[in-house]
Amino acid sequence: MKKLINDVPDVVADSLEGFGRAHADLVRVSHDPRFVSRADGPVRGKVGLVSGHEPLHAGFVGKGMLDAAVPGEVFTSPTPMPIVEATKAADGGAGVLHIVKNYTGDVLNFETAAELAAAEGISVRAVVTNDDVAVQDSLYTAGRRGVAGTVLVEKIAGAAAERGDDLDAVAAVAEKVNANVHSIGLAFTDSTVPHAGEPGFVLPEDQIEFGVGIHGEPGRERIAIEPADRLVDRMMDAILADLPFSSGDSVLLFVNGMGGTPLLELYILFRRAAEILDERGIVLSRSLIGDYVTSLEMQGASLSLLKLDGELTVLWDAPVYTAALRWGL
Amino acid sequence: MKKLINDVPDVVADSLEGFGRAHADLVRVSHDPRFVSRADGPVRGKVGLVSGHEPLHAGFVGKGMLDAAVPGEVFTSPTPMPIVEATKAADGGAGVLHIVKNYTGDVLNFETAAELAAAEGISVRAVVTNDDVAVQDSLYTAGRRGVAGTVLVEKIAGAAAERGDDLDAVAAVAEKVNANVHSIGLAFTDSTVPHAGEPGFVLPEDQIEFGVGIHGEPGRERIAIEPADRLVDRMMDAILADLPFSSGDSVLLFVNGMGGTPLLELYILFRRAAEILDERGIVLSRSLIGDYVTSLEMQGASLSLLKLDGELTVLWDAPVYTAALRWGL
Repeated sequence: MKKLINDVPDVVADSLEGFGRAHADLVRVSHDPRFVSRADGPVRGKVGLVSGHEPLHAGFVGKGMLDAAVPGEVFTSPTPMPIVEATKAADGGAGVLHIVKNYTGDVLNFETAAELAAAEGISVRAVVTNDDVAVQDSLYTAGRRGVAGTVLVEKIAGAAAERGDDLDAVAAVAEKVNANVHSIGLAFTDSTVPHAGEPGFVLPEDQIEFGVGIHGEPGRERIAIEPADRLVDRMMDAILADLPFSSGDSVLLFVNGMGGTPLLELYILFRRAAEILDERGIVLSRSLIGDYVTSLEMQGASLSLLKLDGELTVLWDAPVYTAALRWGL
Repeated sequence: MKKLINDVPDVVADSLEGFGRAHADLVRVSHDPRFVSRADGPVRGKVGLVSGHEPLHAGFVGKGMLDAAVPGEVFTSPTPMPIVEATKAADGGAGVLHIVKNYTGDVLNFETAAELAAAEGISVRAVVTNDDVAVQDSLYTAGRRGVAGTVLVEKIAGAAAERGDDLDAVAAVAEKVNANVHSIGLAFTDSTVPHAGEPGFVLPEDQIEFGVGIHGEPGRERIAIEPADRLVDRMMDAILADLPFSSGDSVLLFVNGMGGTPLLELYILFRRAAEILDERGIVLSRSLIGDYVTSLEMQGASLSLLKLDGELTVLWDAPVYTAALRWGL
């Protein structure tokens, strides 16, 4: 295992220490229990947004997005206790929304944390994201997995909270985004989780995992590698078959890198996906391209399509200032 | 070779087509000859900034940074002709600064292009970046290589041009940044250039290339892998030995990923580098962490330290709006 780390048990702590120092203007890092919260939080009167786990979410804490993130260990749900503390740190008196990717461990731990926080007088609601069209059930999931679309939920619900929507309204926006975003991924290589020490799967040189999960879970099938445009055709077919997009609809197209894929290749995927939207008369209205929901150094990518309406577009465009996403501020 | 590409000769064209579509608000892409320029350019009365080659620079075209980038092929200098056309597209009547990384091919082709542009009446100056302290000469270089520090030159000189400095002044700022930024990189794995089809080097599982170049050129030595903190100690020793930084100096610390290294690991490097600055009484005033100067999917990272003064700090903080860097707008 070749990694730029110190001792394996310290990976998340070391990284968060660096993260907190680099972005002291944006976040505060609590180490025991471990969570990341807005440097200027909790914001009085604003609904708080909380999500987890690593290697995701901490980069989305800041104005217009999350109020706190709970890292847990890499690829592992945080336990309820740090979620409760993050929930308190995010609570400005208007309640807290948990944004939970649909994995059995995460759902259970966030539910327990919500009950504990409620017992302390904090109103908590949860939205469980499940945008992955690849498979119905999977290694750690009953039902569909929550994948890259979660970032779109966090950005848009975060904007709703920032403009002052109440807890029910922010939850409704989050549910609306989740209902209108569908994703699918593929991988060439798996990543190596530090505490595992070896990759979860190794594929032959000519094969890919189509429909892979963000923790290296199996996808729909292993297929022979094809030119990028043909792979995008497959991915877009899977997404477009699942959620009816009609000619004239406006969409946000999100091409997400899994961590180890050059940006140059992500733009090649974007090119063909945009072409398919043109062919179907679907309006490419907004886009996001980059490594946002990663599986460490996995080589692969996912596509997400979010059907936009006026409200979602306004909320997407609203200012955001986090380590990973920033505009308008 | 597992890559998300179509035909190998089309890699750059396909990617730029996607890039141009995704960032139509920021850039225009010319395909023949091939260059990327500001969508709102040339800006009348402003010094134009031009750089190249892929996989770098196109993401830094926009307000407050580059006016044009010339991709060439992957890891290959563009020929003079597209550089001349990019220079014309960047010329708002106040002259053009070429920012050239110190590689023999790039220096030669940019020089030829500058002569051709001058013959058409455009004032051109050049700054050749050479921030890599790893080695004196290298595979494609006489003297030191230009590496990650080039992005800092482009950002700061771009801000000087944006505020209206004339060509001599912008060139002087660029030279000042180059003289005050030093970098060193390391790699665990090399990338595979599409037209080569295989990695330039393969290291044993327990070895790293210390002082690697951004095109996979050999570094100082191959050493056994060590904990991240020890590697950072080595890197900082190399940088600090080269350029005198004194207690009380303010610096910008840039931790750059080579493409295939998880962000989580870059923050682990940042943590230790910041600690070393503390120990030496050097003030960590600004920072940048992420994959900005990449070698496709190479696993590795570089550290750059830029000694700041008041002017450089103001120019670093000035608004920038490009695909890859954005703040203040």
